[in-house]
Amino acid sequence: MNRPTNALSAPDAAKTSAVPRVVIVGCGFGGLEAARVLSKAPVEIVVIDRTNHHLFQPLLYQVATAGLSAPAIAGPIRHILRGEIARGNLTVLMGEVMSIDSATNCVVLDGGEHVLYDHLIVASGATHSYFGRDEWAKYAPGLKTLGDAFTIRRRVLTAFEQAEREMDPSKREPWLTFAVVGAGPTGVEMAGTLAEIAQTTLRAEFRRIDSRRARIILLEGAPRVLGAFPEDLSQRAKEQLEGLGAEVLLGAKVTNITAFGIHYDTTEPDAHGVSQTHSHFLPSRTVVWAAGVAASPLGRSLAKSTGCALDRAGRVIVEPNLTVPNHPNIYVVGDLASAKSHLDPKNPTVVPGVSPGAKQMGRKAAKNIMRQLRGLDAKAFRYLDYGSLATIGKRAAIAVVDVPFTAIKFKFSGFPAWLFWLFVHVYFLIGFRNRMVVFMDWAWAYFTSQRHARVFPDPHALEPNAVIVHIDPPSPPPSA
Amino acid sequence: MNRPTNALSAPDAAKTSAVPRVVIVGCGFGGLEAARVLSKAPVEIVVIDRTNHHLFQPLLYQVATAGLSAPAIAGPIRHILRGEIARGNLTVLMGEVMSIDSATNCVVLDGGEHVLYDHLIVASGATHSYFGRDEWAKYAPGLKTLGDAFTIRRRVLTAFEQAEREMDPSKREPWLTFAVVGAGPTGVEMAGTLAEIAQTTLRAEFRRIDSRRARIILLEGAPRVLGAFPEDLSQRAKEQLEGLGAEVLLGAKVTNITAFGIHYDTTEPDAHGVSQTHSHFLPSRTVVWAAGVAASPLGRSLAKSTGCALDRAGRVIVEPNLTVPNHPNIYVVGDLASAKSHLDPKNPTVVPGVSPGAKQMGRKAAKNIMRQLRGLDAKAFRYLDYGSLATIGKRAAIAVVDVPFTAIKFKFSGFPAWLFWLFVHVYFLIGFRNRMVVFMDWAWAYFTSQRHARVFPDPHALEPNAVIVHIDPPSPPPSA
Repeated sequence: MNRPTNALSAPDAAKTSAVPRVVIVGCGFGGLEAARVLSKAPVEIVVIDRTNHHLFQPLLYQVATAGLSAPAIAGPIRHILRGEIARGNLTVLMGEVMSIDSATNCVVLDGGEHVLYDHLIVASGATHSYFGRDEWAKYAPGLKTLGDAFTIRRRVLTAFEQAEREMDPSKREPWLTFAVVGAGPTGVEMAGTLAEIAQTTLRAEFRRIDSRRARIILLEGAPRVLGAFPEDLSQRAKEQLEGLGAEVLLGAKVTNITAFGIHYDTTEPDAHGVSQTHSHFLPSRTVVWAAGVAASPLGRSLAKSTGCALDRAGRVIVEPNLTVPNHPNIYVVGDLASAKSHLDPKNPTVVPGVSPGAKQMGRKAAKNIMRQLRGLDAKAFRYLDYGSLATIGKRAAIAVVDVPFTAIKFKFSGFPAWLFWLFVHVYFLIGFRNRMVVFMDWAWAYFTSQRHARVFPDPHALEPNAVIVHIDPPSPPPSA
Repeated sequence: MNRPTNALSAPDAAKTSAVPRVVIVGCGFGGLEAARVLSKAPVEIVVIDRTNHHLFQPLLYQVATAGLSAPAIAGPIRHILRGEIARGNLTVLMGEVMSIDSATNCVVLDGGEHVLYDHLIVASGATHSYFGRDEWAKYAPGLKTLGDAFTIRRRVLTAFEQAEREMDPSKREPWLTFAVVGAGPTGVEMAGTLAEIAQTTLRAEFRRIDSRRARIILLEGAPRVLGAFPEDLSQRAKEQLEGLGAEVLLGAKVTNITAFGIHYDTTEPDAHGVSQTHSHFLPSRTVVWAAGVAASPLGRSLAKSTGCALDRAGRVIVEPNLTVPNHPNIYVVGDLASAKSHLDPKNPTVVPGVSPGAKQMGRKAAKNIMRQLRGLDAKAFRYLDYGSLATIGKRAAIAVVDVPFTAIKFKFSGFPAWLFWLFVHVYFLIGFRNRMVVFMDWAWAYFTSQRHARVFPDPHALEPNAVIVHIDPPSPPPSA
């Protein structure tokens, strides 16, 4: 192996030089699970992440909507893995991996350092995609990182404050109109929780505006919300959303987003039954993007280096055993992988982009590396699907519970589904303390309808241009 | 009164037109107290703040050092004042006051709106001052706002991460050197807590570095720390700081701060007893500024409009009754006021810039306005000094307790002072829930030595240039 001279080596290189090194890129659900499983094996592990924390992403919308503070759902990676670090075979590095070079078996960090690997697990996840319209990003932030959550929290709370300040009713209206684009799980959670905030949390705290008159509008291009769920549950979810006070616009294709609102098209049959496209403009000062997901750019780097194929979303099409074709020492897991489950080897099924999928892939990659080290073949991945859950708001959710290896399926919605969702999410949160904090925060919120994290730093301190772009747009609003 | 046509008026202007309006600028300790007292009077109140929250500033260093999350010490102003808002005579506006015009009795907001007042209370506080060296701000953030606290938290935690990544020991050293400039209460708290983090919190979580070898250096130009305290307590504080693992450099005058560290001078007598100035360079990648305080820029606006005098720190020199000279309807309270206490009318004393001072001034301004409305004279301010407290770290603090109207004084330090400090701070925190959260967070931290808020968003998302400035300085480090 040709090791560049500026290679990062372990501090105790002499001691562990005979031990193979596994580098794990990304410490989300997939990467963390892989690190934990591998820590019991005779390997040296290097975990690299661009942030210092593991994020419990399913609850990120609660940080964005001021229900939870960031530390309640995020823990420092090196604190979570402190036992493994103390055992002496795991190193955590905060840094961004810029590229992967499979010829020299190394990953290159943002500072130019080369980190060599014997085995590599790439678990760098996904980011949001604006379908080539990146200029929408500044008007419609997505929700993937803690930074995104703080941006959305600030914008939502600032919009109500601006509405209270605004004396001109025609200018006040767009501040009280909140648009969420995309009715997947994140979009539905955001719309439901924003409706709750407007209807209940802020109800008695303004004098010039009535927060209950705020409009929360969920726009979806498809004909139903939560398209991954059975149709009857989609319908239940839509009814629950409307019950909370949100509006749902189906078949709405967004064509442009500006500082003033959303342009979208709908298609309806005219009097002669011929489809006609109608263009609309929704004035709104606060837009949340929950529509497109794109794989991490490391997929392209892997493709360039190994010649592997990517799917339309930029995900790496992996072998049944989760390796990159012709590179048995490179694994891709989680949202960056386009993987199939081989529970029934004759009929492989697509693995959904959810946290249990990432976790199971991370575990399988770790186990396969352990097999390879013992001279055995890597085995095919089998995804155990326990079902799907989506929450909508207080006492509102839908659930499908699958019993693996059987055809048994339970479907339920409303309060029982919400209780089940609550239990599952609090249970899976990393760390005892966080679990307790989240549970207490929710118990408090449930009984008081308050949201304790309704604070945000002075935006000028953090994002010098954001508020200016947002509040004082450079040109007059276009007509509808 | 000449009211501009674009004046903001209350939504129920017709109903309350006969009621005098009190505008309160700034909702720190002084402004909040004034609003609460005045809400029982027959006035209409408008509270204006540039942020959406009241901040319990004495605990801000805990947010900066990852011990507390922001919502534990900050609450939305309109939530704190919801009772008063519901009663119908108080409006909260989030906005920045750009200027005060005493001729037309109005304040002008950042959006250009004019808010008219009959009585005005200016409580906009202070910010940090770099003694004319504003270019130091990007290398040495101060600690006044939540945004500042997040910046410091990120830099401190990032420095340890960078040290773990850095393979070159000579480059690693400056990442493990933390300098705090200024040994007032904030500087002492920061240095003590940073020492605790290095010695205990992070101890077992790195592999290439030993966090206990990090240096925490407190630089102070004066000959002792906490100069406002009696000399023996200063000495005790210095010993406690050193016991926690921090170094204290007294008589060190900072001459320059760059991305690489701090230049400072010391003066010592040479062999002939003649004072000699020595120049030093301390390589450090993380500097916290706790040295200078400057009054809010609204002081200058008031001086321009009313002709009032400012002191050297830019504070408004107020009358004994806290009004601006010749403007009996304009009050200045808190850190923006240069006020004297008239407990003994023949021997007025300076009011210190601490939260009890701000609170008592806010209360007095409110009561004086209520007196003026009844046709009575505004009374002189009398500051009741209950003593001073400064915390240094876990089980380390100093305290002076004064018994007002007597000469009785208690001085103590160490664990008893720390327990007393804890009790006072938890007791005075706004809101029952926050109090409980802070108390639990501290109990947890006390027994586990952990700090739960050790997370920060990806800096690229919030502060596009900060990390680049901080990690990759443009020029090679100057020699010492």
